[in-house]
Amino acid sequence: MKLSARNILPGKILAVTKGSTTAHVILELAPGLTITSSITNEAVDDLGLKVGDAVSAVIKAPDVIIGK
Amino acid sequence: MKLSARNILPGKILAVTKGSTTAHVILELAPGLTITSSITNEAVDDLGLKVGDAVSAVIKAPDVIIGK
Amino acid sequence: MKLSARNILPGKILAVTKGSTTAHVILELAPGLTITSSITNEAVDDLGLKVGDAVSAVIKAPDVIIGK
Amino acid sequence: MKLSARNILPGKILAVTKGSTTAHVILELAPGLTITSSITNEAVDDLGLKVGDAVSAVIKAPDVIIGK
Amino acid sequence: MKLSARNILPGKILAVTKGSTTAHVILELAPGLTITSSITNEAVDDLGLKVGDAVSAVIKAPDVIIGK
Amino acid sequence: MKLSARNILPGKILAVTKGSTTAHVILELAPGLTITSSITNEAVDDLGLKVGDAVSAVIKAPDVIIGK
Repeated sequence: MKLSARNILPGKILAVTKGSTTAHVILELAPGLTITSSITNEAVDDLGLKVGDAVSAVIKAPDVIIGK
Repeated sequence: MKLSARNILPGKILAVTKGSTTAHVILELAPGLTITSSITNEAVDDLGLKVGDAVSAVIKAPDVIIGK
Repeated sequence: MKLSARNILPGKILAVTKGSTTAHVILELAPGLTITSSITNEAVDDLGLKVGDAVSAVIKAPDVIIGK
Repeated sequence: MKLSARNILPGKILAVTKGSTTAHVILELAPGLTITSSITNEAVDDLGLKVGDAVSAVIKAPDVIIGK
Repeated sequence: MKLSARNILPGKILAVTKGSTTAHVILELAPGLTITSSITNEAVDDLGLKVGDAVSAVIKAPDVIIGK
Repeated sequence: MKLSARNILPGKILAVTKGSTTAHVILELAPGLTITSSITNEAVDDLGLKVGDAVSAVIKAPDVIIGK
């Protein structure tokens, strides 16, 4: 499936931490460049996410704030 | 100002394209890794955004979808 | 690609309207049930979106507000 | 109250699952078509959400990603 | 309609500016405290938004970043 | 850091409630006008957020729905 979201950044999972309903997943996009995602525990199970997986961070352009 | 948003990714502006009210800004986060932001034209003017500027992409963790 | 977003709703494109940088796309999810998406013009072109296409509406669970 | 959000989809609650601060609510929009919402536990209590309730899923157009 | 969104802030419209598909609306929440909303032109027309109108700014709790 | 987000509303923290991974923070923007933010527990710790702190609510314009 191809997505309208402008940003599909490939990375590798460094950590998966589940809470009671929400999980945090940390991806490495490039050496020293990580991004944190907050998704449902269900999504972690459905996708079988685990450390070392090759995945992508999908981000809509309006969700990217610029700071200067 | 320090932010609660988990992702503050430093980058350099590659392109700024204004529409009638909304602008698109492309940042380079690492060699070959770019991210596109959609912000208001006003924000482009207020921050004086232009090609080559060192800026950051600020992204909340719940706005990062994982694709596998 | 499988996504962490909880909602992947299949539909058919009823209309595509481009603005200067942002486009509106209307999908039919079920008879009489439509959903409107606002995406970049670039995404419309990249995906080659046109009336009649079978596509999906991808929506994160935190983006669904409940009204009662 | 009438809303600027372009999508107000009527449905019926199939399930409500509370976590420690966040709850997941599943709505049926049409036969076989469900949508999952992630809201605060407080919102579940304030609206008195329970299985069988007639409610609406309110979704902003920019929050609808298109996949093809 | 009662909403799961935690923030329903009453205000008065100070300005409405339409673009090609997207409009910007400025609300005054309290003396000297304004908030800017970006919605579709269609929403402006459907709600008949104009300067002086008493409206509310509806904001989900996850959409509020804290800066310190 | 200056932000592209159109809304930077100054306030004072009235309450901080941590869940298992997500926390809720209530700010007072003006007498009788509060706003609730949902952020990660990590963000609460990183920013050292506590009752009485002077902080800002940062909100993108597209995240402000208008209700009338």
